[in-house]
Amino acid sequence: MPRYYRYLGELMDEGVERISSNELSVRMKVTASQIRQDLNNFGGFGQQGYGYNVQYLYEEIGSILGLDCQHNVIVVGAGNMGQALANYVKFEKRGFVITGLFDINPALIGTMIRGIKIYSMDQLPEFVRNNRVDIAVLTLPKERAEQAAETLVRLGIHAIWNFAHLDLDLPEDVVVENVHLSDSLMQLSYNIVKNRREQQNK
Amino acid sequence: MPRYYRYLGELMDEGVERISSNELSVRMKVTASQIRQDLNNFGGFGQQGYGYNVQYLYEEIGSILGLDCQHNVIVVGAGNMGQALANYVKFEKRGFVITGLFDINPALIGTMIRGIKIYSMDQLPEFVRNNRVDIAVLTLPKERAEQAAETLVRLGIHAIWNFAHLDLDLPEDVVVENVHLSDSLMQLSYNIVKNRREQQNK
Repeated sequence: MPRYYRYLGELMDEGVERISSNELSVRMKVTASQIRQDLNNFGGFGQQGYGYNVQYLYEEIGSILGLDCQHNVIVVGAGNMGQALANYVKFEKRGFVITGLFDINPALIGTMIRGIKIYSMDQLPEFVRNNRVDIAVLTLPKERAEQAAETLVRLGIHAIWNFAHLDLDLPEDVVVENVHLSDSLMQLSYNIVKNRREQQNK
Repeated sequence: MPRYYRYLGELMDEGVERISSNELSVRMKVTASQIRQDLNNFGGFGQQGYGYNVQYLYEEIGSILGLDCQHNVIVVGAGNMGQALANYVKFEKRGFVITGLFDINPALIGTMIRGIKIYSMDQLPEFVRNNRVDIAVLTLPKERAEQAAETLVRLGIHAIWNFAHLDLDLPEDVVVENVHLSDSLMQLSYNIVKNRREQQNK
């Protein structure tokens, strides 16, 4: 779904008003029947022979993705990755608003990133009591991530965007989305080795 | 495979020497038969009844992942994300050594990140001619990413770790691994909405 949303956004930027599943299929490099199947699952947006109304589909998928409301986000771990994410303005445009960063490093506490304050980890419970927090981003070393995640869940946060290099073991009703950068880099490396072998065998 | 490598590394840190597919299955939350299937595909490391030798398996998978040799990496786009990645020491420990950053911002060109120089984009062809580059990281706005990727491929770079928010259209022999952070965040948001609905229906 996020990928459909991205492509539909590009189409809107280009001023395209309608698109057939065949045209979308060429762009997205998936089969037209896959597209019809995916989009039918989400309420049957297409009309046979007319193609999809790009803006309508974009808005419907946006709503399915929960992008029609604001998400308050805190970043736990204000190191390189946490700061990079806090500096990323595009997330805010999509409704993901970072309201605070948290760290244990005294040199960082009290400073600001793009106008967002870095608090001490000790201030986390109080912050969560006084401010709605929908999503916590975990950008901590893995040694401290598990405990931080458990604290967040105990404080009532049910959605975690996890950049720490481990799989979190959390209750079923907590939504976790992992970004394992090291795994991704190793996957790239694996594909390089495989690709090299295939080229040699040609 | 990267996930196996990560778990095996953790086992080694804990001093575990052998592990059965059943024990590994509990840890990794995949079925034991899946594990046996995955690992048999990669040369049949296990001996029936004895379990896997953790260190041997770790090293074998490391070699399959291409981690037994150094990869020279350049970062194209020295903004927040590019700088965060350049500051990330752990990649270097795995053999991914960043040798240069590139940007068009005059304020950044000539400065250093963790001892690594930021060059002008104009210097890219010369740099690639004079230095082996195995992987290029693309941390550019999507408007400039496609063209930069084409330049990199033309210069002979065949592996791209793409953080730009688009799917690159490159020749078949170029290996691309995508990190689409916005897609990941939207996936999280989608799961939050879905989860909320499920909890309400309980």
